[in-house]
Amino acid sequence: MINLETIQAAHDRIRSHIHRTPILTNRTINERSGVEIYFKPENFQKIGAFKARGGLNAILQLSEQERYYGRSLGPVTTHSSGNHAQAVAFAARQVGTKAYIVMPRTAPQVKKDAVLGYGAEVIECEPTLEAREAGVQEIIEQTGAVLIHPFDDDRVIAGQATAAKELIEDVDFDLFFDVIMAPVGGGGLLSGTALATHYLSPRTKVIAAEPEGAADAVLSFKSGKVEKAPYIKTIADGLMTSLSERTLGYIREHVTDILTVSDAEIIAAMRLIWERMKIIIEPSCAVPLAALLKNKDQFAGQKVGIILTGGNVDLGKLPF
Amino acid sequence: MINLETIQAAHDRIRSHIHRTPILTNRTINERSGVEIYFKPENFQKIGAFKARGGLNAILQLSEQERYYGRSLGPVTTHSSGNHAQAVAFAARQVGTKAYIVMPRTAPQVKKDAVLGYGAEVIECEPTLEAREAGVQEIIEQTGAVLIHPFDDDRVIAGQATAAKELIEDVDFDLFFDVIMAPVGGGGLLSGTALATHYLSPRTKVIAAEPEGAADAVLSFKSGKVEKAPYIKTIADGLMTSLSERTLGYIREHVTDILTVSDAEIIAAMRLIWERMKIIIEPSCAVPLAALLKNKDQFAGQKVGIILTGGNVDLGKLPF
Repeated sequence: MINLETIQAAHDRIRSHIHRTPILTNRTINERSGVEIYFKPENFQKIGAFKARGGLNAILQLSEQERYYGRSLGPVTTHSSGNHAQAVAFAARQVGTKAYIVMPRTAPQVKKDAVLGYGAEVIECEPTLEAREAGVQEIIEQTGAVLIHPFDDDRVIAGQATAAKELIEDVDFDLFFDVIMAPVGGGGLLSGTALATHYLSPRTKVIAAEPEGAADAVLSFKSGKVEKAPYIKTIADGLMTSLSERTLGYIREHVTDILTVSDAEIIAAMRLIWERMKIIIEPSCAVPLAALLKNKDQFAGQKVGIILTGGNVDLGKLPF
Repeated sequence: MINLETIQAAHDRIRSHIHRTPILTNRTINERSGVEIYFKPENFQKIGAFKARGGLNAILQLSEQERYYGRSLGPVTTHSSGNHAQAVAFAARQVGTKAYIVMPRTAPQVKKDAVLGYGAEVIECEPTLEAREAGVQEIIEQTGAVLIHPFDDDRVIAGQATAAKELIEDVDFDLFFDVIMAPVGGGGLLSGTALATHYLSPRTKVIAAEPEGAADAVLSFKSGKVEKAPYIKTIADGLMTSLSERTLGYIREHVTDILTVSDAEIIAAMRLIWERMKIIIEPSCAVPLAALLKNKDQFAGQKVGIILTGGNVDLGKLPF
């Protein structure tokens, strides 16, 4: 159960290890959308993505528990196509323990290099969920490593919640957000965002955005059970995973709607942010702005916070 | 003659029209270079480049003078391959006057579009200095427009000086910079940077950086007269112009050295900034970091300020 104190404790725990990313606004994008948008650029976060928050909160908490029993934390492991891999590698280095990261061999080289740069070991596998889970299972059996799941873990979700917490705290006190938006993949960030918003700014709606080419969350949100996407084909490589029972529960309780966008709409929104804001964001990150621009009328005149999730793109494979 | 009061007055004049851009640091780049670098990211400035400062200072000052005589400012004009064009168009809009901008037909489309977006008129010409100057001459004869030169103008130079002024003011008071670096094209930014540093932090050296493929300034700096580059071929499209007598004078007086770098070194430095800092900078902007990385030993352990000049790149034509 994640309550306000859980999120506050997570923030206190990770604060000295992370950047308090700024709030950015852009006049052109506001004019073009007719919406007053406040961006939280987590591409400037440690490891280049918000996932540093969740990984740190889980691993620091484990480390505290072990210390309580007079032990030091053993190895940790996870499987991830990208940013969560770096998050676990980075957090493990912060507490001085070993990380084994199972990554699909198709993950961008820049992400593999970054994981290696944090001193973790990379184990490559086939790019299927089954192969990833089997890889992690093998590591656990061989090394006794503790699994840090990318999203199906309340410690991770409470860590991700701190991004929305900062967004709400740092924007002018008199202003309350009509809406806060986040993309949805496995639902860790979205759950955290929805919980933080529920406790800290209860009048604010949380609206998620998802690629049409990985549209599982919108189906699960409607049916109430964890559904598979009809097909998986999207440039938003961070959003291909399905929800878990846990994240679906938080999302059904605290999220107002999930909007879907095409890859062309994602690329256009990404390009708009690159060209006008001069910041590098990954495709997954452009999904909420794409959804806002597609549904301008719905947001007209509102104050909207958008979490920009990360900036780890392979510059050799840009969609422009 | 530009003194401390001139620069202070320029800053007061333009302050409400510009962003006070932040100071950025990056641990990886510091570790890799062995230098403590403070970046001043003028890619986040209005129009996406520091040139907003000089254009505004010149045009606001003209407008004040005309108001003193009870007149309103007539049209303004300039020729520019890029950012100065946008600066004049933007500044003209701020004072409510018309701008005619002569641009080489080879200038990036994104820069032409931006100029048009500020309500200025674009007149295309052949990509030679002669054609550009002839184009401006024709505009002046037809419309009585006032020329705002990209760099051979003390008002423009005093405006550009405010970037270094902010850099010096905003970095910890106890810290004094060993070196401040800027790229050199026509020498407007470099002159302003050198003058501001001379007045505000006299113990700090100013070191410039120039592409090997537009290496006029380094020759002029040595010979003491305005020289042409042996050849012009560089990705740093903002740095192709030669110095003027005026800028050479300031530079000879207040700059310690000019270092040159190859296009490969520029692209590597640009990529490093994109990948690690997650910000979009244009190639011209990466030239000082490229020079620093090439001459690491010279800068080892020092505190270095670098002005990142702009972020207006054509995303369709990236060197990666």
